[in-house]
Amino acid sequence: MSKAIAPAELAASIRGYQLRSEQQLDRYLTLTEPGTARLLEAMRYSVLGGGKRLRPILVYCAGEALGAPLASLDAPAAAVELIHAYSLVHDDLPAMDDDDLRRGRPTCHKAYDEGTAVLVGDALQALAFGVIAEDESPGVSAAARLHVLRVLAQGIGTAGMAGGQAIDLEAVGQPLTLAALEEMHRRKTGALIKASVLMGAITANVGPGPELDALERFGAELGLAFQIQDDILDVTGDTATLGKQAGADAARDKPTYPSLLGLAKAQELAANARDRAIESLRSLGPRGEPLAALAHFVVDRSH
Amino acid sequence: MSKAIAPAELAASIRGYQLRSEQQLDRYLTLTEPGTARLLEAMRYSVLGGGKRLRPILVYCAGEALGAPLASLDAPAAAVELIHAYSLVHDDLPAMDDDDLRRGRPTCHKAYDEGTAVLVGDALQALAFGVIAEDESPGVSAAARLHVLRVLAQGIGTAGMAGGQAIDLEAVGQPLTLAALEEMHRRKTGALIKASVLMGAITANVGPGPELDALERFGAELGLAFQIQDDILDVTGDTATLGKQAGADAARDKPTYPSLLGLAKAQELAANARDRAIESLRSLGPRGEPLAALAHFVVDRSH
Repeated sequence: MSKAIAPAELAASIRGYQLRSEQQLDRYLTLTEPGTARLLEAMRYSVLGGGKRLRPILVYCAGEALGAPLASLDAPAAAVELIHAYSLVHDDLPAMDDDDLRRGRPTCHKAYDEGTAVLVGDALQALAFGVIAEDESPGVSAAARLHVLRVLAQGIGTAGMAGGQAIDLEAVGQPLTLAALEEMHRRKTGALIKASVLMGAITANVGPGPELDALERFGAELGLAFQIQDDILDVTGDTATLGKQAGADAARDKPTYPSLLGLAKAQELAANARDRAIESLRSLGPRGEPLAALAHFVVDRSH
Repeated sequence: MSKAIAPAELAASIRGYQLRSEQQLDRYLTLTEPGTARLLEAMRYSVLGGGKRLRPILVYCAGEALGAPLASLDAPAAAVELIHAYSLVHDDLPAMDDDDLRRGRPTCHKAYDEGTAVLVGDALQALAFGVIAEDESPGVSAAARLHVLRVLAQGIGTAGMAGGQAIDLEAVGQPLTLAALEEMHRRKTGALIKASVLMGAITANVGPGPELDALERFGAELGLAFQIQDDILDVTGDTATLGKQAGADAARDKPTYPSLLGLAKAQELAANARDRAIESLRSLGPRGEPLAALAHFVVDRSH
C-alpha cells in the first residue's frame, strides 16, 4: 500500500518535517533565564546538534495523516525529541554507556561536565512536559492534551524508556535470550517511538478505539524494526556515517540482534517487523499510506 | 492571624497529611513491570525512606483550605514529593554534591550504583507527571489539571529547580553575593515549594487572579524562609537530627546565609521572610490560617 507515495514525495515531506522540528526545537530552547547560561547552552548543544528527528517526523506524519493542523503538532513533536535528547545525554554518562562521541561530536558530559550533563537531561525532560502543557494551539481539547501527556509519561517511565535502560544497564556482559533482548528494546527505544505515533494521532483528536489500537501496533512494530536496524548498522556501518562509535555494542559485549542471531537473520527480523507494522495500518485505508512509506524508509536507512 | 489554629491541632493535621502522602507514595510506587526489580526497588528506597513531606503537606494544606476534596489532592501531593526525591537522588551524585548520607541512610548511588541513581531520578520525574496526567478524581477539570502540570513543569525546569541547581553547581568555591544566593535558592528550593502551594490551590479550582497571586507570593516567601532555615540548621544542627551530614555546606565551602551574614542576621532574615509570607495571606481571610500556621511551623523546625 505504500507504493502510492513516490520516494521523492516521501523524501520531501520527511525533509519538511525535519526542518520544521529543527525550527521549533530552536524556538523552545531559546531560553534566557539569568545565571544559567552554561546549562542553557549545553541543552541547545545536546538537542540542536543534528540527529535524524525520527520521533518528531512520526508525530507530524501520524498527526497530519489523521487530519491535525501542522501547528498543533509542533509541541508534541518537539517534546518527543527533547525526551530523546535527554535520554541520549544520560545514556552517554560514564555511569551508563560511557560514550565519548554522539552525532559526530563530543557527548554532553565531554563537551561540558558530568554534573551539567545530568542537569541537561533533567531540564530537557521537564521542558518536554512543559511544552505540551503550555501549548495553546486551537482545536486540541484539554482532554486530548492530557491524553498526550499520559502517553508520553507512560512511554518514558519504568514501563517504557527508563525501564528499558535499566534492563540494558544490567545486561552488559550477561547472556540475554532473544525474548529478553526484545523486551529491553521494546521499552528502551520502542516505547517512545510508539508514543510518538500515538501523540500525533491523539493531537488529531483520535480517541481511544480500534484506530488508536491499530496505530499502537504499528508504532510497536516500527520501534522493533528500527532497533534491529540500529543493531545491524552498528555492525555494518562506519563511525563517520553513524556519527557515533561503530562496533560500540560489540566492544562493550552488549547483546544485539546480530550477535544473537547473525546478520542475515537479524535483517530478516527487521523486514518482518516492518511488514507487520505496515499490515497494522490496513484498517486506516489511504490515511495509513504516509506512515507505511515512512516504515520502509526507516528500515532501509543506512544511518 | 495564625493564632486561630492551636499548635496541637496544627501538629495533628500535619501528621495526617504526612501519613496520607506516605500511603499514596507507597501506592504509586507499587510498580510491577518485569525485568526492572532493581530500579523499582531503588525508586522506593529513595522516596519512601522518610523525609518531612513538606511539599505534599503544602499541597494538601493549600488545597483543603481552599475547598478541594482531600482525594483530589493525592496526585499533585505525590507528584511534588516524587520530584523532590528525584532532585535529591541526582543532587547527591558524585558529579554533583557527592553526598553519602541522606535521611540517615546511604544515598541512592551508594546503596545501589550511579547508573541506577541516574535512572531513578529520571523515572521519578516521569512518574510525577504521569501521576497527575492519569488522575481521574472527580471535580478537577482537564483545564485545571493542565494548569497544575504547567506549574509543575515551570517550577522544576531551567527557570526553577534545575536552573537553581545549575547555579549551585557553578557556585561551589566561588564568592556569591546575597542577591545571587537568593536567586539560586529561589529557584533550587523555592520554586518547587511555591509550585506545591499553587498546585493545591489550582486543584481546588482557583484560577488565575488575585487569590492565586497572593498564594504565589506566600509560596515564594515561604520557600525563602525554609531555605534560610535549612542553611541555619546545617550550622546549628547535628548529623543525627538532620539525617544528613551537618556542616556539609561549610565543609564544601558552599555559600550559605549564615556564612554570608552570620547566624543572628540569617535568623532575622528567615523570620522576616516568614512574616512576609503570612502577610501575603491576609486577603484570603480565615482560609489562609492553616497556611499561616504552617509557615510558623516550617521556620521554627529543628530539622
